[in-house]
Amino acid sequence: MEITQLISEIKRKKSFLCVGLDVDMEKIPAHLLEEEDPIFAFNKAIIDATHRFAVAYKPNTAFYEAYGLKGWEALQKTIDYLNTNFPEIFTIADAKRGDIGNTSSMYAKAFFEDLGFDSVTVAPYMGKDSVEPFLKFENKHTILLALTSNEGAFDFQTKKMDGLETYKNVLQVSKTWVNSRNLMYVVGATKAEYLRDIRDIIPESFLLVPGVGAQGGSLADVCKYGITADIGLLINSSRGIIYASNKDDFAEKATQEASSMQMQMEEIINGL
Amino acid sequence: MEITQLISEIKRKKSFLCVGLDVDMEKIPAHLLEEEDPIFAFNKAIIDATHRFAVAYKPNTAFYEAYGLKGWEALQKTIDYLNTNFPEIFTIADAKRGDIGNTSSMYAKAFFEDLGFDSVTVAPYMGKDSVEPFLKFENKHTILLALTSNEGAFDFQTKKMDGLETYKNVLQVSKTWVNSRNLMYVVGATKAEYLRDIRDIIPESFLLVPGVGAQGGSLADVCKYGITADIGLLINSSRGIIYASNKDDFAEKATQEASSMQMQMEEIINGL
Repeated sequence: MEITQLISEIKRKKSFLCVGLDVDMEKIPAHLLEEEDPIFAFNKAIIDATHRFAVAYKPNTAFYEAYGLKGWEALQKTIDYLNTNFPEIFTIADAKRGDIGNTSSMYAKAFFEDLGFDSVTVAPYMGKDSVEPFLKFENKHTILLALTSNEGAFDFQTKKMDGLETYKNVLQVSKTWVNSRNLMYVVGATKAEYLRDIRDIIPESFLLVPGVGAQGGSLADVCKYGITADIGLLINSSRGIIYASNKDDFAEKATQEASSMQMQMEEIINGL
Repeated sequence: MEITQLISEIKRKKSFLCVGLDVDMEKIPAHLLEEEDPIFAFNKAIIDATHRFAVAYKPNTAFYEAYGLKGWEALQKTIDYLNTNFPEIFTIADAKRGDIGNTSSMYAKAFFEDLGFDSVTVAPYMGKDSVEPFLKFENKHTILLALTSNEGAFDFQTKKMDGLETYKNVLQVSKTWVNSRNLMYVVGATKAEYLRDIRDIIPESFLLVPGVGAQGGSLADVCKYGITADIGLLINSSRGIIYASNKDDFAEKATQEASSMQMQMEEIINGL
């Protein structure tokens, strides 16, 4: 997907909501366990219930790998369902991959070509030649981990590297990589005030923002420091939407939660 | 597997060779493509041809993911084949995973419990709570990326963080994590002279060393600086062994290459 398509979808829906499809069999409604493919059945119901309010979906691959072959099959069906029925919606494989060059090429092929995702999250630790194989793909997007939403972010990411915080170093250095225009970044909402500095380095790049809701981040704060003329944000919510209820009404509750977030976003967009 | 079992296997075979099972359909002998599962057929042949000389096998998950469901099935068959026929051999899922706590737990479950690997490689960027879920598993081993063998290692890993190179910071900090005794580390052979400093920080931990052979690292140099009384090294070779020939004689050539590396290692062990 071209970035302009994502932007026009955001403006059309007045939403920059991304729904995280982190399916845990122990948390989905019991009646779905009787389905042939409970994971896909759950995802399909969630997508049908929320697509009017969301511009992106983000399955985290860990939750699918944990179920082995059945999990991968469910992931494949989910991305196929999205690409067939909602081609205007941006898709993110939250895989946090990264390896030496020829191996990163294999991952890029798997997520962009075989599965058909629009984007994939990638870890920066192994540097330039571990990320550039992803950047080669036109109209595909590589979402680099910069500042994550967990406690462990303070172990290395916020430490100073050559006088500049490591996550800022990652932002700076990544701008020099070939096809860096295909980069987006993960920036956790729990550190919203950091976004001011981040926007000094990457004023226009899209940011994927986890940590609003369950992890305690504030939508208003993130937007205050991070929003751009083209919005430039994808706010992810996983548990808050998909597990709003674990009963028969899970889809309706998911609709309500997604709709409520979209309304907050519409207000923010209208106030720009 | 307990670490003592790995050490006794190393001493019994006089080898610390790890064979990387990075299967690329374009590089395997053409006659195998007629098999029902060419990837597994190739791996089985390579394992049968090299197991007398190797103490570990390391499939890189990227190469399996690139073939979708069939790839995952081949990975599952490969680890099952190893665990059933060669339970004394150490297995490594080279997956370079790492995510927030509950998600890392899913990955740990997938690789340690469902697939049944002895160890998995993990990226350090997200810090303590992204790695500790892996460390919880008794007699399972988490191999943390410290200093990788690619060019991009110089982008961040060798830069100074609070006055100390980032990879040394990763080593230092990781020692403070709960169950850190279950840690091993990836240290690329192309930077063998760095091993002296590394051994000051982690004198006894096992190191998984890629980059000997195809990537230009020297076995003698790695051992000079990195070997311990219990050896403490697993030297990985992928392409040099598994693609020693792409003809009918690929298994014999793999035996020759693995045997030749084992002999060099035996000489080093005898000289200790």
